[in-house]
Amino acid sequence: MAQYRKIINDPVYGFITIDHPLILEIVAHPYYQRLRRIYQMAFAHLVYPGAVHSRLHHSLGAYHLMCSALNELKSKKIDITPEEELGSKIAILLHDVGHGPFSHTLENELIKDVQHEILSLHIMKILNKQFDGQLQTAIEIFTNTYPKKFLHQLISGQLDMDRMDYLTRDSFFTGVSEGVIGYDRILKMLTVHNGELVVEEKGIYSIEKFLVARRLMYWQVYLHKTVLCAEEMMVKIIQRAKELITKGENIAAATTSFDFFLHHYQTNQQAEKHIDLFCNLDDADVICTVKNWMSHSDKILSLLCSMLINRNLLKVKFQSIPLALATIAENKKLVAKQLSISEEEASYFVFTGQVTNTAYNPLEERINILYKDNSIKDISTVDHALIQQPLVSTVKKHYICYLRK
Amino acid sequence: MAQYRKIINDPVYGFITIDHPLILEIVAHPYYQRLRRIYQMAFAHLVYPGAVHSRLHHSLGAYHLMCSALNELKSKKIDITPEEELGSKIAILLHDVGHGPFSHTLENELIKDVQHEILSLHIMKILNKQFDGQLQTAIEIFTNTYPKKFLHQLISGQLDMDRMDYLTRDSFFTGVSEGVIGYDRILKMLTVHNGELVVEEKGIYSIEKFLVARRLMYWQVYLHKTVLCAEEMMVKIIQRAKELITKGENIAAATTSFDFFLHHYQTNQQAEKHIDLFCNLDDADVICTVKNWMSHSDKILSLLCSMLINRNLLKVKFQSIPLALATIAENKKLVAKQLSISEEEASYFVFTGQVTNTAYNPLEERINILYKDNSIKDISTVDHALIQQPLVSTVKKHYICYLRK
Amino acid sequence: MAQYRKIINDPVYGFITIDHPLILEIVAHPYYQRLRRIYQMAFAHLVYPGAVHSRLHHSLGAYHLMCSALNELKSKKIDITPEEELGSKIAILLHDVGHGPFSHTLENELIKDVQHEILSLHIMKILNKQFDGQLQTAIEIFTNTYPKKFLHQLISGQLDMDRMDYLTRDSFFTGVSEGVIGYDRILKMLTVHNGELVVEEKGIYSIEKFLVARRLMYWQVYLHKTVLCAEEMMVKIIQRAKELITKGENIAAATTSFDFFLHHYQTNQQAEKHIDLFCNLDDADVICTVKNWMSHSDKILSLLCSMLINRNLLKVKFQSIPLALATIAENKKLVAKQLSISEEEASYFVFTGQVTNTAYNPLEERINILYKDNSIKDISTVDHALIQQPLVSTVKKHYICYLRK
Amino acid sequence: MAQYRKIINDPVYGFITIDHPLILEIVAHPYYQRLRRIYQMAFAHLVYPGAVHSRLHHSLGAYHLMCSALNELKSKKIDITPEEELGSKIAILLHDVGHGPFSHTLENELIKDVQHEILSLHIMKILNKQFDGQLQTAIEIFTNTYPKKFLHQLISGQLDMDRMDYLTRDSFFTGVSEGVIGYDRILKMLTVHNGELVVEEKGIYSIEKFLVARRLMYWQVYLHKTVLCAEEMMVKIIQRAKELITKGENIAAATTSFDFFLHHYQTNQQAEKHIDLFCNLDDADVICTVKNWMSHSDKILSLLCSMLINRNLLKVKFQSIPLALATIAENKKLVAKQLSISEEEASYFVFTGQVTNTAYNPLEERINILYKDNSIKDISTVDHALIQQPLVSTVKKHYICYLRK
Repeated sequence: MAQYRKIINDPVYGFITIDHPLILEIVAHPYYQRLRRIYQMAFAHLVYPGAVHSRLHHSLGAYHLMCSALNELKSKKIDITPEEELGSKIAILLHDVGHGPFSHTLENELIKDVQHEILSLHIMKILNKQFDGQLQTAIEIFTNTYPKKFLHQLISGQLDMDRMDYLTRDSFFTGVSEGVIGYDRILKMLTVHNGELVVEEKGIYSIEKFLVARRLMYWQVYLHKTVLCAEEMMVKIIQRAKELITKGENIAAATTSFDFFLHHYQTNQQAEKHIDLFCNLDDADVICTVKNWMSHSDKILSLLCSMLINRNLLKVKFQSIPLALATIAENKKLVAKQLSISEEEASYFVFTGQVTNTAYNPLEERINILYKDNSIKDISTVDHALIQQPLVSTVKKHYICYLRK
Repeated sequence: MAQYRKIINDPVYGFITIDHPLILEIVAHPYYQRLRRIYQMAFAHLVYPGAVHSRLHHSLGAYHLMCSALNELKSKKIDITPEEELGSKIAILLHDVGHGPFSHTLENELIKDVQHEILSLHIMKILNKQFDGQLQTAIEIFTNTYPKKFLHQLISGQLDMDRMDYLTRDSFFTGVSEGVIGYDRILKMLTVHNGELVVEEKGIYSIEKFLVARRLMYWQVYLHKTVLCAEEMMVKIIQRAKELITKGENIAAATTSFDFFLHHYQTNQQAEKHIDLFCNLDDADVICTVKNWMSHSDKILSLLCSMLINRNLLKVKFQSIPLALATIAENKKLVAKQLSISEEEASYFVFTGQVTNTAYNPLEERINILYKDNSIKDISTVDHALIQQPLVSTVKKHYICYLRK
Repeated sequence: MAQYRKIINDPVYGFITIDHPLILEIVAHPYYQRLRRIYQMAFAHLVYPGAVHSRLHHSLGAYHLMCSALNELKSKKIDITPEEELGSKIAILLHDVGHGPFSHTLENELIKDVQHEILSLHIMKILNKQFDGQLQTAIEIFTNTYPKKFLHQLISGQLDMDRMDYLTRDSFFTGVSEGVIGYDRILKMLTVHNGELVVEEKGIYSIEKFLVARRLMYWQVYLHKTVLCAEEMMVKIIQRAKELITKGENIAAATTSFDFFLHHYQTNQQAEKHIDLFCNLDDADVICTVKNWMSHSDKILSLLCSMLINRNLLKVKFQSIPLALATIAENKKLVAKQLSISEEEASYFVFTGQVTNTAYNPLEERINILYKDNSIKDISTVDHALIQQPLVSTVKKHYICYLRK
Repeated sequence: MAQYRKIINDPVYGFITIDHPLILEIVAHPYYQRLRRIYQMAFAHLVYPGAVHSRLHHSLGAYHLMCSALNELKSKKIDITPEEELGSKIAILLHDVGHGPFSHTLENELIKDVQHEILSLHIMKILNKQFDGQLQTAIEIFTNTYPKKFLHQLISGQLDMDRMDYLTRDSFFTGVSEGVIGYDRILKMLTVHNGELVVEEKGIYSIEKFLVARRLMYWQVYLHKTVLCAEEMMVKIIQRAKELITKGENIAAATTSFDFFLHHYQTNQQAEKHIDLFCNLDDADVICTVKNWMSHSDKILSLLCSMLINRNLLKVKFQSIPLALATIAENKKLVAKQLSISEEEASYFVFTGQVTNTAYNPLEERINILYKDNSIKDISTVDHALIQQPLVSTVKKHYICYLRK
């Protein structure tokens, strides 16, 4: 008995307990251990030096919250079988296992048109084979084909354990105390109504607070202009490397696995075939490669790489309307001259983009409040709702990155 | 030198340092020490058992934040003289010194039409005499007659140190983590523009978060229905006692000071004369009196007192529209019969009321954001402001308290 | 179902859940609610202003830890029946219900030779009658007459939930971060061996840390010289009052219950008879009485009372050897002259005493470590034990309190 | 002015403020930024997943504590000039800048016989040139050639800011709450006596607590058997690679800088010459190299690498006496057979070692307590000292690592 029980110290929740042998085996699997080497928040640590926690830590945390949520629901007499319980825990544990290096940043740069959820599913299927079908329920819950819909909602939905953990954990590690949400209170307010996850009436303010905290975290942390800029520069580096490859230049990554994906981007439609190679990739592959390229003969590549590694980033400006094309062109001209490169190449150092965020989008999926009289209201329609227009509508901001003179 | 320096442990901020002899003397004064015996949150501890912190602790905390805020402003080259610094610190330290037992709850029941700020000022004037005029600047800042308006705003304004501390401290002691505000970040964003306190642009989200947290604390904690009910019952007890006094019945308070105010409510227009007696009052006077009255011969008084002491409170219902008069009358009739009292007397056990809260009222005083180009915008008019209608308009809720059957 | 479930916010543990109707009823009982009005740490708040938490809060906290400990043990396949579980929870909830005003300080001053544990037991028996024998198991566990000894050890022993909570809670509310213990880790290391509570090998450092933190809390907080002095002055006040009563002087307490105990100290051998009156007493009775006595005609009584209320305390000096009798006599002579009282009466203002603390006394009860090979060692005999002589031997300090000139 | 001021969020201390242009420039320097990519705690995150904070974060934290300590001392009228203040801050900021990948683990494997302090000094000298001699005072303080000895003691001594921060930060990020020290209280207790750093009498318990917490952190975290094993395996990997190089086999590191040090270990006596290359190294170089070697043709190298990357570590056993040679030989024989390698080669998978720790070694440097009568006592000689034999003597433990069957 005792050998199947493991407790893990977590600065956020105190202790995380694992008490099922299958979960222990999954956690010990190299595919899962790889997540240690992927930052949860990519380049956010360039602004918030504490934000160096890993995807492994986040998914363990989400697993912990899942355990709490299931216990809470069971104490409210919601019917959940041991198999469903195990399935839900495994599904949340593996929900991010398909993330590649620097997660969202490079999501589309390494494997074309394949999102990390698809890769997570591929990996879960492989593990399902290795573990003799024991992940079947987890896969059904993950893909929302399992009858009890609320289990999927705990994994992917407006109030899923993924969000609960990442908001809690990211605000903890960044030190942005204003991003703190009352995750424990929200968990205690969850219940199931007509098969769907709902929130008890007493939880309204906690939910509102949760949505406001999320909004703050987006604008203050996730979309912080320096973070954004570093991520865009990372993308530019990969794009330049691929451009040079297309031109037939000699470009090698620091690791064999990363080298493969760099040179086989086009043919990689079937990610499934290369999942094993993919599971060798992590942030270190990219960082070392970028470090090696700091002395590459291509001036654009080496400059971008040095700037990123030394945190000597491009300047960024945010504004509410798109930038005038003339200004951008002017800027590119200047950079082209300054670096003796073509104006087209100057696009690596002068570029624009936009970011958007919606604090709550009821069109996607609703957060439903359950009243004592068994009626249901959407959080944006309760009396005196805080979550009205400003939070429901999408906010869009435009930015330009450009070289300091 | 060393003897003038005192450090005080504070679970909220770590340590509070006092390093001026005058402040040490004020803190040691019986008028100030009295605040130890007044709950910061009156009956909130009936719902949140941790919320037993005192007015003394709160005002020390506000003093601590004032020290930080002044240091912050000075580091930004805002001109603040040592005398102004001392004055501001004393003013915030004493801003609540005029609170009587159970603070706001009994504010109008013990001394008619005299708010605690007036009493704070009376007390500051007395101390000013005792300390040979050394509180003069503090008094001017407190009464907003001092030329540098921002100093008063640090004591009483949308972003004063009073609010910063009470939100921080109250959420800490109640354990309502969702009420946490980023006080340290807000302090770092404060600056002065045209003589008034403003917030740097980078602080927008922190301010929004602060206003949302305040809103949550009001509805979830300060106006919690059980807390509200206990406070109303406390008021009813005093009202019944005064009614009995008017009728010539024998009513004695447990302490001599409280007895005086109970019997001299009408004649007490000039609170100043009795300030010394007033400064003997604290929560204990009221609690002991209520405990003694649990066995008073008046059935209404003794029942109300037993119910309050034993936390066997009236039932409360909140709703968004006023209660139908017929329902109230019906309820009173039932209680009158149940307790064998008149229907008029039943008003002690069945009564209605309303509570309101406005998260941000720009008509009172604005929170101004200072942009990098030196322009100023109200927080409710910034781009994509969260603080729009739902927070700017006043929310009103109606309630009824009534006896359980 | 839902109506039996209550969650309570706690700044220390997040949430405390009560999910049994009997426990809800006990918590709602006036005998238990009284604990709201008794400071957990008596006068410690004179030094640590945050330390105003109540006995009610502490016993709820200990109850919460008991729930965790029982879950932990059950997950290790220790046999605990639902009835035993309920009994243990009730026993810890009520372990302090017999505390009177200012707890230990006045323990022997109000009822002669009756410790609070005896009173707790009396009260539990009364409640057992009221609740039709449902507290029987709780009483057996509390009095250590229940066969499974480890259940009693969770309530009263070297590692009981009482200590776990008070150290955690007291360090939290005082802000003495150095007193923090790893209560959650210790709970996870508890197990049962031969019917007794033991600690798994991996918990050695946590236990050592726990004992050192306890030692620190004693010397830095519980036995802080200012705290000690205030408590001694409180005792002196009661003693003076009783002396005046003996002399036939007119001494009235502020409340009827406290008045009874003040005047019937001698005849009170059978505390049981007056338990109902006793359960009216709390800190407020004493504070109001002291406040009233500030203007008593007896100079000694009124001076002591004013000093205590205004926190204008006697001076205290600690030293490792007893004070010279001549010095004490000299001091008394001075005070007698200064206040125009007899030298005998001067003992109210000049007195000595001693305090002792033993961090770990293996003679009382041992902390046993369970090794992987099933062997058992006392914590003071493990390899490289920290807990050796300095912590096992009793430390005694002598003090003198005297009037400032 | 404003442009020289930067605030950095820190989950441990809230905010770190930098308000001097030179410090901003040093922090922005690539040599300093490199520290982002070196784990503060090497492989501790394999056991404590939160322990992924960087050397950069630690040294910023130590800088923050230095600011507090200097303010504290100045408020006690200790004479510290602005230049000394700047020098001390720079010295602590750069005290760890000479750490290579995986810090202590590989300290002796990459550059022979050169400790990181020496490299820190080299780097400080280079920066001193780049910044026109502005680091001169910092260098003198760092090397203890500056007359005011207490400044050096703040950087390197029993109570230096390095230890204060790493204990605080490491216990925070690991979640080992028992390692928490009262750093803020200790800072407030520091003063200077006869030119040396001493602790005021009231700080005795905090110091004892600090030493006990440090002891706990060593045995529970820093020398945790799994952490130790991973670090030893890392060393074995480098040793095997160097052995293969010696044999003339083709071994390439993933990055050019790491490749250089791998192949030029012998000739590298003068580390100074290669400092620029050294400052390209970080943890990623090593990790990627190890990942590449997972598929190296040398069976020993590839197995060690796979095991480390996949956290499939050797087993470790601790004991208080050295392991019997016969047992070790037996173990090696088994492994040699199992892997078809020589018994000598089996030493890569079966090896022994020992670890030691002394909680307080007064022979090195003393912690002196300053009493009110100006006398001085060593912390181990105060009355009822906790810090006596068990903590003063060195504890040694022996371990063996071996392959699971």
